[in-house]
Amino acid sequence: MLIVMKAHATEEDVRQVCARIESLGFRAHSMPGAQRTAIGITGNETELDPGTFDEMSGVQEVIRVSKPYKLVSRDLKEEDTVVRFANSDATVGGDEVAVMAGPCAIESRDQAFTTAEHVARAGARFFRGGAYKPRTSPYSFQGLAEDGLKILAEIRDRFGLLIVTEAVDNESLDLVEKYADMIQIGARNMQNFSLLKRAGRSRKPVLLKRGIAATLEEFLMAAEYIMSEGNYNVVLCERGVRTFADHTRNTLDLSVVPAVQRLSHLPIIVDPSHGTGKRNKVTPLSRAAVAVGADGLIIEVHPDPDRALSDGKQSLYPDQFVQLMNEVRQIAQVLGRSVAEPVANPAARQTAGSAAAR
Amino acid sequence: MLIVMKAHATEEDVRQVCARIESLGFRAHSMPGAQRTAIGITGNETELDPGTFDEMSGVQEVIRVSKPYKLVSRDLKEEDTVVRFANSDATVGGDEVAVMAGPCAIESRDQAFTTAEHVARAGARFFRGGAYKPRTSPYSFQGLAEDGLKILAEIRDRFGLLIVTEAVDNESLDLVEKYADMIQIGARNMQNFSLLKRAGRSRKPVLLKRGIAATLEEFLMAAEYIMSEGNYNVVLCERGVRTFADHTRNTLDLSVVPAVQRLSHLPIIVDPSHGTGKRNKVTPLSRAAVAVGADGLIIEVHPDPDRALSDGKQSLYPDQFVQLMNEVRQIAQVLGRSVAEPVANPAARQTAGSAAAR
Amino acid sequence: MLIVMKAHATEEDVRQVCARIESLGFRAHSMPGAQRTAIGITGNETELDPGTFDEMSGVQEVIRVSKPYKLVSRDLKEEDTVVRFANSDATVGGDEVAVMAGPCAIESRDQAFTTAEHVARAGARFFRGGAYKPRTSPYSFQGLAEDGLKILAEIRDRFGLLIVTEAVDNESLDLVEKYADMIQIGARNMQNFSLLKRAGRSRKPVLLKRGIAATLEEFLMAAEYIMSEGNYNVVLCERGVRTFADHTRNTLDLSVVPAVQRLSHLPIIVDPSHGTGKRNKVTPLSRAAVAVGADGLIIEVHPDPDRALSDGKQSLYPDQFVQLMNEVRQIAQVLGRSVAEPVANPAARQTAGSAAAR
Amino acid sequence: MLIVMKAHATEEDVRQVCARIESLGFRAHSMPGAQRTAIGITGNETELDPGTFDEMSGVQEVIRVSKPYKLVSRDLKEEDTVVRFANSDATVGGDEVAVMAGPCAIESRDQAFTTAEHVARAGARFFRGGAYKPRTSPYSFQGLAEDGLKILAEIRDRFGLLIVTEAVDNESLDLVEKYADMIQIGARNMQNFSLLKRAGRSRKPVLLKRGIAATLEEFLMAAEYIMSEGNYNVVLCERGVRTFADHTRNTLDLSVVPAVQRLSHLPIIVDPSHGTGKRNKVTPLSRAAVAVGADGLIIEVHPDPDRALSDGKQSLYPDQFVQLMNEVRQIAQVLGRSVAEPVANPAARQTAGSAAAR
Repeated sequence: MLIVMKAHATEEDVRQVCARIESLGFRAHSMPGAQRTAIGITGNETELDPGTFDEMSGVQEVIRVSKPYKLVSRDLKEEDTVVRFANSDATVGGDEVAVMAGPCAIESRDQAFTTAEHVARAGARFFRGGAYKPRTSPYSFQGLAEDGLKILAEIRDRFGLLIVTEAVDNESLDLVEKYADMIQIGARNMQNFSLLKRAGRSRKPVLLKRGIAATLEEFLMAAEYIMSEGNYNVVLCERGVRTFADHTRNTLDLSVVPAVQRLSHLPIIVDPSHGTGKRNKVTPLSRAAVAVGADGLIIEVHPDPDRALSDGKQSLYPDQFVQLMNEVRQIAQVLGRSVAEPVANPAARQTAGSAAAR
Repeated sequence: MLIVMKAHATEEDVRQVCARIESLGFRAHSMPGAQRTAIGITGNETELDPGTFDEMSGVQEVIRVSKPYKLVSRDLKEEDTVVRFANSDATVGGDEVAVMAGPCAIESRDQAFTTAEHVARAGARFFRGGAYKPRTSPYSFQGLAEDGLKILAEIRDRFGLLIVTEAVDNESLDLVEKYADMIQIGARNMQNFSLLKRAGRSRKPVLLKRGIAATLEEFLMAAEYIMSEGNYNVVLCERGVRTFADHTRNTLDLSVVPAVQRLSHLPIIVDPSHGTGKRNKVTPLSRAAVAVGADGLIIEVHPDPDRALSDGKQSLYPDQFVQLMNEVRQIAQVLGRSVAEPVANPAARQTAGSAAAR
Repeated sequence: MLIVMKAHATEEDVRQVCARIESLGFRAHSMPGAQRTAIGITGNETELDPGTFDEMSGVQEVIRVSKPYKLVSRDLKEEDTVVRFANSDATVGGDEVAVMAGPCAIESRDQAFTTAEHVARAGARFFRGGAYKPRTSPYSFQGLAEDGLKILAEIRDRFGLLIVTEAVDNESLDLVEKYADMIQIGARNMQNFSLLKRAGRSRKPVLLKRGIAATLEEFLMAAEYIMSEGNYNVVLCERGVRTFADHTRNTLDLSVVPAVQRLSHLPIIVDPSHGTGKRNKVTPLSRAAVAVGADGLIIEVHPDPDRALSDGKQSLYPDQFVQLMNEVRQIAQVLGRSVAEPVANPAARQTAGSAAAR
Repeated sequence: MLIVMKAHATEEDVRQVCARIESLGFRAHSMPGAQRTAIGITGNETELDPGTFDEMSGVQEVIRVSKPYKLVSRDLKEEDTVVRFANSDATVGGDEVAVMAGPCAIESRDQAFTTAEHVARAGARFFRGGAYKPRTSPYSFQGLAEDGLKILAEIRDRFGLLIVTEAVDNESLDLVEKYADMIQIGARNMQNFSLLKRAGRSRKPVLLKRGIAATLEEFLMAAEYIMSEGNYNVVLCERGVRTFADHTRNTLDLSVVPAVQRLSHLPIIVDPSHGTGKRNKVTPLSRAAVAVGADGLIIEVHPDPDRALSDGKQSLYPDQFVQLMNEVRQIAQVLGRSVAEPVANPAARQTAGSAAAR
């Protein structure tokens, strides 16, 4: 159920409606929009009586939601969600196409800093890099854990990049939440509902990757899990699905971008690195992702891909990333969007910004 | 096996090498390139002795080809193939992104002419429309057959559009070859090897659609069947593959475009209408297809989609097609390519062109 | 639309109803059953008025069929279809589980006769072997064509085995129809509608293989194409579908057996050789196929699999086939069915039978 | 790396080799077999020098393992693993085909006890039922949690059934480990590596379900995660994979049973309830699973499926389960295996057994 408030409803009206919902034992999710505020109700296994709210001050309409997802739906919130970050003007879901770049895994301070400088110069505003790596084999490199997170935090201070990194369980999420700006939930954990709920109790934005065989509905329901706990800053990410096709590691399903945008107000970005698994496909598919209307890209870049401890084959050389940025910048313009410009000296700029933010 | 001729080899050298190949009971496929001519050899189940050719005049190198495809391969022909048509300057595989548009099926003279005028005005150079429709049910509309082909031929005369239409068996191919400019082999027939061989004996270019569950190698091998019979004007077409995903009719696999371009010299276009099956996804995926580097688009347009006898849900309204053309024209420019401009009065222009061509 | 006749309707009643249908420009398909005859009507794009038939002699009920398939449906014919053959008491769809065995391709008279003797001794009643091979590569062995068919006809005469072999186009179907007992339509041609219609005009039973990515509905509709032309002796065959799984060549979908049996009266057999692509999986999956309720098996057997010109990896050694027959014979008994017993001297027996049949 | 001990190596020899391995900072996994003990070594990112062990007492051979999985492999342990349970003679992987049955979710004490009595009477030795339910929607019934586990423990005491139930995170695993006999890891968590490691530190056997899009190698690697932590009692479970096919909820891949048995010593069972999602397909596919060689079945049974809080459509009525048991019992005999016989009064028998065990 969903309560649409009148355009001129007061904050007190909204507060009263939420209080009534909570008093009935349910949860109220208030979603302010440009024109109106809508309030989602969850926790109601049985139907609520619309009459309970119809006559309250400021209530315009009570709507039954037939779709399985409620909070992710455009029915609840017509405007696109723009995810914002503390101490930064970077956004996901706004006019600027968000670019997240960095190595698959944080391997060392040197590797991370070298890569970060490259991607910051090229215009990336977000730095990606795994400290906890979910690997198919228990004998593969599993990441530097908290040491990796500390390196990431230093990179934020040095280059002013927002940090995106994966949490693989509740314990690592506690730490990721502490050090990073955005908590990534990986494809393998898209239906790890315990982890989704924990992420939903965090105040940091969440980057939720589509599972390798997830339908659109399952993908949206995973976001709903996070939102149902009160964290409304969720960014979706298409990263390829598993099919019979063997010329790429996964099959990048770009059609899911307009499909999500039709049903949900949440932003959606694309990961052409995992989506193709092949370096030479990353740039063409990045162009395509921006052209299809994605709100961002997440790209693997490594200063020395052949020696990467994971996913080297799909990581770009720094020069290739500069070229990619140039190309997607032009494509973005065709769609009336932008991609951040190159930065001559990111360290200088960002140290100041970082200091100012404190 | 593949024989690379020297840059300055004469036509007579090439002729001599081909004659030697034929005299041994094999087939020679001469592929002239900008720098050199290469000659593919097929029909040799056992290995030929390279020494047979090494010392012939003009021969630079004899190469063993380990890949299962030979004639489609860039090993044989480094330059992109540009498919050309009689009495037209339109191409597929050249700088201009080829746009083919029209209804799923030719339903009547009126419907076809109305659509043709719309798409010609918007800048399409090719008209698509089925006279033979492979339908899942024997009780569905199966197309107007030769009557449909006659309408298509009139459209070429009236609007100067090149005609692309599907052949479903040897009998219909005889007629399609007579009336149309380009013979389409549908996805369901991608491994109808008898039909592929028949298309290979035609002199008209062939548009070969990827099967719904075809790997890249199977796709290229299907083109190889056509080429092995002597028809080298083959255009590949990605039209979506079947996966578990249910938000689109098929999953459009744009990564196959750069994958084909890496391995083969043949042009590849994209069909976002069948690839998504939903009108609202066609334009975003068309932008993405051009951005990924496709050599063309094939789009379903219908003046009254809700009454279409087939595939109405995925057909664009004429106005939507105009908008699509505007968008892809700008994307194409970013890649250094073009899309043909709108034409104010296609009938006038083309009648003249058509007359001149006679 | 479907007309159910009364239990005691006369042949003349049925004839009259069919005549009325035909006089309206439609096609009547009379399906006699144990309790009643039902008459399917095809060719009616618009709805017929049930009143046209309601009052005719012997008509019990006129039923609108909402499913896209009509003639394949159990709505039309409740009893299982049992496919019978001239001059043989072997059936498909009866109590006996039909076993078809033989090499992938007929390579030579010797190879075919050796294999035939082995499989006949082990109890197979049908001999399979390709004279026309649809191969992914134009450069692979394409079969012996009519020479292969002649060898197959000799095998029928010598061992009394019924011959099942594939037709790949209208021309080869003419010949297969002449020499063989059952016309196979391969997976790649499951939606070659032109070929399906041609098979529908044959009087020989048809073995229709499921396409590599065909849904159940598409599979049944392909059978409907054949039946709509008047050939009601169609046997379906599950042979594995294409998925992401890579431990077998295809993923054998045994659940389709009970699914078909629920919706259709047609028999369905299983091909574990193509379904798995691996010799060591053929026997376990054959047991499973009989256990799930399949009406038969089609198995590749080769006297020297390592030298087979096609599909050697999935062909059983003759001894393995004997073992397979022993195992499935016991499984069949659990389901109240049988598998034919071994035959000490198939040539002796069958020469007599064959002579008698002349 | 893997060390094979001589047939007559003493326990002290084995102890010494393990001590040497541990002293080098690695982990030793001793796997006693009928003929020999083998010792797996994990934790070695770099190659160990075989010479370190060659000359130790009792060592026969040092083998480099090239496959990514080590402990799950038949290279390490040739004999089938038979998983045993405290206070019960039931096994998984032995001659008896293990049957696990019960409702999808524990809904109430009544529902659970009623079902348990039915399945115990029919011969099931294991009771399944979820206390923690991973549901696609956050608003669906999520299980009774510890209250459900307590009901399950009562059922063990009353009917002597071994309890199998799912853990969805580390917290629930602590409780499942306490109350149940076997810890289930669900398909969605097959690559929740944190949970796998936690299960690996448990002393209770683990039932590991194949992920919905997991390859055979990924499936085995997930088991390897558990084993690498020291828990060698892992049972694999095929429960259907996601494909384009829409006539069943998932596509049950029975070929994975012989595929696993070829590569691994671990037992594998089949879940035809989730594998098909349709009640009428469960019995035929159960027959097929036993026929293909599975070591067990896990079946959903509910006394009132139409009112089940989850998965009602795929749950059998108790009578259908009795029938299923009769059918698979006969199939098992064909393979030289057995299925436990019906029990007239499970409560009487088991209370005694349970008392004795204390």
